[in-house]
Amino acid sequence: MTKTKAASRGAAKTTTLPVPELIAKKRDGGALNEEEIQGLIRGYTDGSVTDYQMAAFNMAVFFRGMTPVETTAFTLAMRDSGVVVDLSAVPGVKVDKHSTGGVGDKVSICLAPMVAACGVPVPMISGRGLGHTGGTVDKLEAIPGFRMDMSTKAFAKQLGKVGCSLFKQTAELAPADRKLYALRDVTATVESVPLITGSILSKKLAEGIDALVLDVKVGKGAFMKTPEQARELARSIVRVGKLAGKKVSALLTRMDAPLGRAVGNANETAEAIEVLHGGGPEDLVECTLALAVEMLRLGGVARSERDARRMLAEAVASGAAAAKMREIIRAQGGDPRVVDEPDRLPAAKGRHVVRAERAGVVTGIDALEIGWSSVALGAGRTRADQDVDPAVGIVIDAPLGTKVAKGDALATLHVHPKQKVDGPAARVAAAFTLGRKAPEIGPLVLEVIR
Amino acid sequence: MTKTKAASRGAAKTTTLPVPELIAKKRDGGALNEEEIQGLIRGYTDGSVTDYQMAAFNMAVFFRGMTPVETTAFTLAMRDSGVVVDLSAVPGVKVDKHSTGGVGDKVSICLAPMVAACGVPVPMISGRGLGHTGGTVDKLEAIPGFRMDMSTKAFAKQLGKVGCSLFKQTAELAPADRKLYALRDVTATVESVPLITGSILSKKLAEGIDALVLDVKVGKGAFMKTPEQARELARSIVRVGKLAGKKVSALLTRMDAPLGRAVGNANETAEAIEVLHGGGPEDLVECTLALAVEMLRLGGVARSERDARRMLAEAVASGAAAAKMREIIRAQGGDPRVVDEPDRLPAAKGRHVVRAERAGVVTGIDALEIGWSSVALGAGRTRADQDVDPAVGIVIDAPLGTKVAKGDALATLHVHPKQKVDGPAARVAAAFTLGRKAPEIGPLVLEVIR
Repeated sequence: MTKTKAASRGAAKTTTLPVPELIAKKRDGGALNEEEIQGLIRGYTDGSVTDYQMAAFNMAVFFRGMTPVETTAFTLAMRDSGVVVDLSAVPGVKVDKHSTGGVGDKVSICLAPMVAACGVPVPMISGRGLGHTGGTVDKLEAIPGFRMDMSTKAFAKQLGKVGCSLFKQTAELAPADRKLYALRDVTATVESVPLITGSILSKKLAEGIDALVLDVKVGKGAFMKTPEQARELARSIVRVGKLAGKKVSALLTRMDAPLGRAVGNANETAEAIEVLHGGGPEDLVECTLALAVEMLRLGGVARSERDARRMLAEAVASGAAAAKMREIIRAQGGDPRVVDEPDRLPAAKGRHVVRAERAGVVTGIDALEIGWSSVALGAGRTRADQDVDPAVGIVIDAPLGTKVAKGDALATLHVHPKQKVDGPAARVAAAFTLGRKAPEIGPLVLEVIR
Repeated sequence: MTKTKAASRGAAKTTTLPVPELIAKKRDGGALNEEEIQGLIRGYTDGSVTDYQMAAFNMAVFFRGMTPVETTAFTLAMRDSGVVVDLSAVPGVKVDKHSTGGVGDKVSICLAPMVAACGVPVPMISGRGLGHTGGTVDKLEAIPGFRMDMSTKAFAKQLGKVGCSLFKQTAELAPADRKLYALRDVTATVESVPLITGSILSKKLAEGIDALVLDVKVGKGAFMKTPEQARELARSIVRVGKLAGKKVSALLTRMDAPLGRAVGNANETAEAIEVLHGGGPEDLVECTLALAVEMLRLGGVARSERDARRMLAEAVASGAAAAKMREIIRAQGGDPRVVDEPDRLPAAKGRHVVRAERAGVVTGIDALEIGWSSVALGAGRTRADQDVDPAVGIVIDAPLGTKVAKGDALATLHVHPKQKVDGPAARVAAAFTLGRKAPEIGPLVLEVIR
């Protein structure tokens, strides 16, 4: 084969690190050592390892995988590519939660204040939404004045003072992961368990946590379509998290239909606030409690599930959870009155009701379709540089198992008065499956991996 | 996972072509259709498909392969990325030869004029050397005044007039392959049969040929280390070449020891000229004749191997082959007197003889080590932007099977008088294996695939 002038690019740019050899080693099924992985990630961060070399490496990892030791080195190298927050001044076991993302997943918003109200410090980093799943940052920013772009110092300080701090991922934390994730997204290498493990854990470790509870969503509306895939990812994160010296648990939870009834931004925040007051849809409450129980156990404040459930019920009944939410909102510049007066949240005034075309029982609500319909209404984004509309969204009127007559409301689109909704309305209608018999609804939590 | 701003790069840059989806399709074992492959290569040529996307795609191809139909579409798309030379004005079946590269492989230099002297038009594109294998361009440029950078028009015109035209690959021909090969070289995706097939054939098809004879080198000094690997590549090129409407044959030939005795540039050209006069080392003559026979058959001027061998012997004995070489050199601006007075070629005056440290029979000469030693002397390059020294090189004094006494010459380094040669000399010495019994030397041509 003819070799051209550019054939020496790699050698010239990488100086000491033999990048093509490292790619070939992974390609041929070998394991890289800690130093080699650190070199790759350090080089990728400073630009001496190119995008095209990392793209080839990622694809080789997609096919060959990584050992737990490799994945740990990879995770720690990405963590160390930026600032690692020091939370050692805050007493207690600092516990965060991470969800792999689902439709209607507003759990963080009620979970964080509930757990903090029980005495476990909760440092939480969130991201914006992209595609069919929303993002906690977009939902919380629907609260007037609420800011999540504090400095890491302010983040640590608030955690010590309030017991909870809700932070937006910044360029300071694990910049290698930001760069690598963007690359994976356009090179079809997102779906790799070791790469996902490194991406999730590197950010969480950079945040200074002691423990992490993972919510791995499973089903049509989730990134992981089957329990097998979800279990593999959960096990990888638990194992690598432990190798990195942290306490980690993972829950596998169902994500076929949307979680709760609200899908959007402000309406999801409002629904999460209901949970703090003891209300809210059953599935959302159960998901929140299951994750909160695990956080209380890892945080060392509850010995058993029973203990933990009692403490959480008490935090809600006493108003301590809602009070914690007000305190957090106040600390982050928002209007705490939204906790008691949810109509202070932005809300679109138009209503479009999607009705049943025949009688039946709701046996399925396709979360993916509902998620994309919400994006189409303006509540989400398809490109990272787009703004979202906090006021629009979808409310499920007939959740799974509801018996409906012809013409009954299945869902309501909350839109601006003159907004055109024909496309999304048809899509939402098609997301509903009506059957003859009530569906069997299994448990929300499929499995706990510790 | 958090999605960052750059997550939308792909979508923004590629407009209509869903590049990540195409990568994912290949990654998951699917076959791309013609339009998809054309889109990828066209996009890569114009820059809308990025290096990092092609790198991921290449690695997916490394693991998943391509069907013959895919490989053909890929090859033709690369051919069509630049100029396709029109040789239709030249009568006859135009036949080129391609070698996958070996040490001491100067076959093209004697083969082309011999075949042309028998009436088959030979349009030949060659490249420079890189790494342990030399390049025909470097060897021919050792002829004073000889130029290979003519225009494609001049290339076609000379072919019609002289019956042979020796051309250096330029940026005009298959630019997508140039770009892609450089990328593969630094991303550990060189070793993929469909990608190699596309790389070799796209350039040859762009040259306007009707038929191609492939010399797939097998062994320690070759790119393909085993007959199985070589056979797979040969079959792929023959099949895809036929799907592209060309006549293609492939020979598998041994490349454990260097071919012939000379390794370098001017000294290899001189050795090839010996063959034109009826001399030269046996293995070099046999390799040249085997390939020439196949070219004469594909070119339609010989019906059988016997016919072809008779014609070739006649061309040499009559002086027609040497006359054709003079004609080619004259047409390309070189000094044709080198054909009869080889000491007009540049030659280094220093000699360093590498001697046997004990008595024995030469049972092995590691071609790879001889190749790298030649590079170390200055005859080759490790980076594409380096110059080579035409005058230095290595001559094997004791080919395979030679019985040597202690102190006998194994090889002679041709170097400049004050040049330091300790490293290469030791390396050359170590490349020789001395045994007790003469080795069995099998046939040079292992297999013919048509």
